[in-house]
Amino acid sequence: MIAPNIQLDPQGRLRHLLTIEGLKRQMLIEILDAAESFTTVAGQAVKKVPLLRGKAIVNLFFESSTRTLTTFELAAKRLSADVLKVNVGTSATNKGESLLDMLRNLEAMHCDMFVVRHAESGAAHFIASKVAPHISVINAGDGRHAHPTQALLDIFTIRRHKKEFAPLTVAIVGDIMHSRVARSQIHALTTLGVSELRVVAPKTLIPSHASSLGVHVYHDLTEGIRDADVVITLRLQKERMESAQLPSEHEYFRQYGLTPEKLRAAKPDAIVMHPGPINRGVEMSSEVADGPQSVILEQVTNGIAVRMAVMSMVLGRAPEGTV
Amino acid sequence: MIAPNIQLDPQGRLRHLLTIEGLKRQMLIEILDAAESFTTVAGQAVKKVPLLRGKAIVNLFFESSTRTLTTFELAAKRLSADVLKVNVGTSATNKGESLLDMLRNLEAMHCDMFVVRHAESGAAHFIASKVAPHISVINAGDGRHAHPTQALLDIFTIRRHKKEFAPLTVAIVGDIMHSRVARSQIHALTTLGVSELRVVAPKTLIPSHASSLGVHVYHDLTEGIRDADVVITLRLQKERMESAQLPSEHEYFRQYGLTPEKLRAAKPDAIVMHPGPINRGVEMSSEVADGPQSVILEQVTNGIAVRMAVMSMVLGRAPEGTV
Amino acid sequence: MIAPNIQLDPQGRLRHLLTIEGLKRQMLIEILDAAESFTTVAGQAVKKVPLLRGKAIVNLFFESSTRTLTTFELAAKRLSADVLKVNVGTSATNKGESLLDMLRNLEAMHCDMFVVRHAESGAAHFIASKVAPHISVINAGDGRHAHPTQALLDIFTIRRHKKEFAPLTVAIVGDIMHSRVARSQIHALTTLGVSELRVVAPKTLIPSHASSLGVHVYHDLTEGIRDADVVITLRLQKERMESAQLPSEHEYFRQYGLTPEKLRAAKPDAIVMHPGPINRGVEMSSEVADGPQSVILEQVTNGIAVRMAVMSMVLGRAPEGTV
Repeated sequence: MIAPNIQLDPQGRLRHLLTIEGLKRQMLIEILDAAESFTTVAGQAVKKVPLLRGKAIVNLFFESSTRTLTTFELAAKRLSADVLKVNVGTSATNKGESLLDMLRNLEAMHCDMFVVRHAESGAAHFIASKVAPHISVINAGDGRHAHPTQALLDIFTIRRHKKEFAPLTVAIVGDIMHSRVARSQIHALTTLGVSELRVVAPKTLIPSHASSLGVHVYHDLTEGIRDADVVITLRLQKERMESAQLPSEHEYFRQYGLTPEKLRAAKPDAIVMHPGPINRGVEMSSEVADGPQSVILEQVTNGIAVRMAVMSMVLGRAPEGTV
Repeated sequence: MIAPNIQLDPQGRLRHLLTIEGLKRQMLIEILDAAESFTTVAGQAVKKVPLLRGKAIVNLFFESSTRTLTTFELAAKRLSADVLKVNVGTSATNKGESLLDMLRNLEAMHCDMFVVRHAESGAAHFIASKVAPHISVINAGDGRHAHPTQALLDIFTIRRHKKEFAPLTVAIVGDIMHSRVARSQIHALTTLGVSELRVVAPKTLIPSHASSLGVHVYHDLTEGIRDADVVITLRLQKERMESAQLPSEHEYFRQYGLTPEKLRAAKPDAIVMHPGPINRGVEMSSEVADGPQSVILEQVTNGIAVRMAVMSMVLGRAPEGTV
Repeated sequence: MIAPNIQLDPQGRLRHLLTIEGLKRQMLIEILDAAESFTTVAGQAVKKVPLLRGKAIVNLFFESSTRTLTTFELAAKRLSADVLKVNVGTSATNKGESLLDMLRNLEAMHCDMFVVRHAESGAAHFIASKVAPHISVINAGDGRHAHPTQALLDIFTIRRHKKEFAPLTVAIVGDIMHSRVARSQIHALTTLGVSELRVVAPKTLIPSHASSLGVHVYHDLTEGIRDADVVITLRLQKERMESAQLPSEHEYFRQYGLTPEKLRAAKPDAIVMHPGPINRGVEMSSEVADGPQSVILEQVTNGIAVRMAVMSMVLGRAPEGTV
């Protein structure tokens, strides 16, 4: 178990964003409200606010991800921050410097934020537990553990369409077992108190403790999304498809791929979500991905506003001790 | 044939820059005049104008080119835009995401411009035909098709030295057949109505339809540049030199390499141009490259102003429907 | 011998920073004083000053170094300059362009500064001897020759702790022979007139002409640091450890690795320095690296201020001829 409470400062304000677990409903709502205020920035003549001018944000991507890296970079630049990409591969291994020494050095350069993506679960927590008091850490995905900004942009997108969380039935379809996105979504939607939260997947892709997470488990897609207000599909990692855990891409699509026909089981105004990038013809057909119920590109747009919100909240706190 | 007209908006203003083909003389002059106004920026104490503040310009270089990438990046930064480099290789192939899905995502992030370089002819047109209305596409070179900003900086450089196009004799020397630069130059110089436009190359490097382009074909260098006002040399791709299309690097230089002696056939005040990088001792001797008639480095300088002009024109249009 | 005097302009002001050799005491003090004024920038609400707005600074790193690259990038951004990273590997080799042609092109784009790191001694001098009058070159490390900004941040750190240089005994411990850092430190500390300057290393790592540099040579660590005010340790390159020049990592640490016990030979208030990255358990134990006498992370912090000072001095000169 990774302790989540280090992400709050003594005043209970967000200092790091490492996981949704342990964040109170009020905090999630505060982030969503802040993100709402940033959605207007993209529509301005000059898409920039000076909130983080002079702040140095370091992208520490130990695991490559062009899309997530780009959204964090854009969000930081729209807040007027300076952005550094540290080539972690080259840097850490080349000279045998330890991760901690690298972090100490970046701190000593008066960097303000580390955005961390790492293949190992707990990496962002580990880093957050070690950094100097002036540094904030944002988890941009760690192993199978958490991807909190993704879950936040997802609930932000849901709120924009459905207004209230309480009456909603939400179904998450796909590789629940290995997905950090699913874990963070489950924590967020449970905290926000949706009426019913379901996970839909073959048995091999559902963790054994799933029911203890407060979710209803389905193995049949049509049953799982019946009367749902929100259908969230997960990306199927290629390595899963090639492993023994799944029959074949084709067979997966037949059983769990979203098509317009299957989607009819959900409510007529259900929205379809996906964290991207989509495997068309695996998680869903192109008709659904590009169809009227898809809000997948809105998720991308909202991802900028949500990341601006989180970045400005963690760096915009009054210094500790001055309150 | 690639339709060029999509680069204009309904009001006839430049929305994308994909090719010189189809652009009217007046449009070319408008771009040159705008570039003229940007040449003073480099001389200012602060070499920056706030025209594109808050705009996000994405360099999508599927084909690597440090020089062109750097000029676009510098031009964008001098216009105060935010510049993103998307590592297309890693991004597109790693996760099997389609090009179109990648573009849709960048659009959803409210990026404003894609600068595209691609080894395949028509790539920039294809992308321009698919993007959302708020996006502009600049072709930074596509296959053998076009390299419009290069041609624009070339005619800008010519105008700065020769004032009027009408009286000029211009000779383009080198691999006409495979050169996107030559194609764009021929369209530009024909549209501007130079008195005589010649291409000079061995038969294997002249396209069969050359004469239909309104150019005079020469196989002898001295004849081809006789009394020319402008001698444009093209870069000889290494792969050509190694192929059967050419005898040898040495033999090419003997026949088509520009030397001070051969250059005497041109007018005494003829200028010598090259898109760079130069193969010294192949396309020309160093005496010519670094000599008094060479304007090759001025071309580089002018490339910044021309790219600033094009970028600010396509992004500075009033929104469609408001005019 | 590399001529150092080209780094001053006709008015005697710093135009390039290539080496400490040949810089007068007064110039070193002027740089330290300027750096002092920049240390406050990191403490401001907005860590930015507009001194170099509109300037384009190009990082030409022929030898990779994440840390040094990052400090130069941060320093440049805090001065509001535009920073370009030119991928030298790809660029220079791919198309067979010569280094000089690449430099000419960057000059023609009105870049203002080249920060050069190169595995060959003299590379930065060579480049500085070739650039146009409006360009300044900063040496970020060339072969075994010089690393002047490192030496400047070292003496800056010493001055902050010890106020005066004249009474100090300074010991430099480690691979003196192959270290550009040591060479630059020796020039700086000699120029500043420390009371006694010592180098401490096994015979195989001391250059034969060491005593002609005005330093005292020691082969025993405890003797070498006895009563020292400042102990500077050097990074031991891995390739040395694997070569016949040294017995083993373990044996090196036993003889030359700094431990709390050995450090007691120095003055009680001696400070311990290291240019980083540290090989813990080779050059020193972690107790020393993280102990109360270590100022290693302060060196990193000071590196930003010193680089801001140098950059603003070389680019902030009034144009030649106007004075």
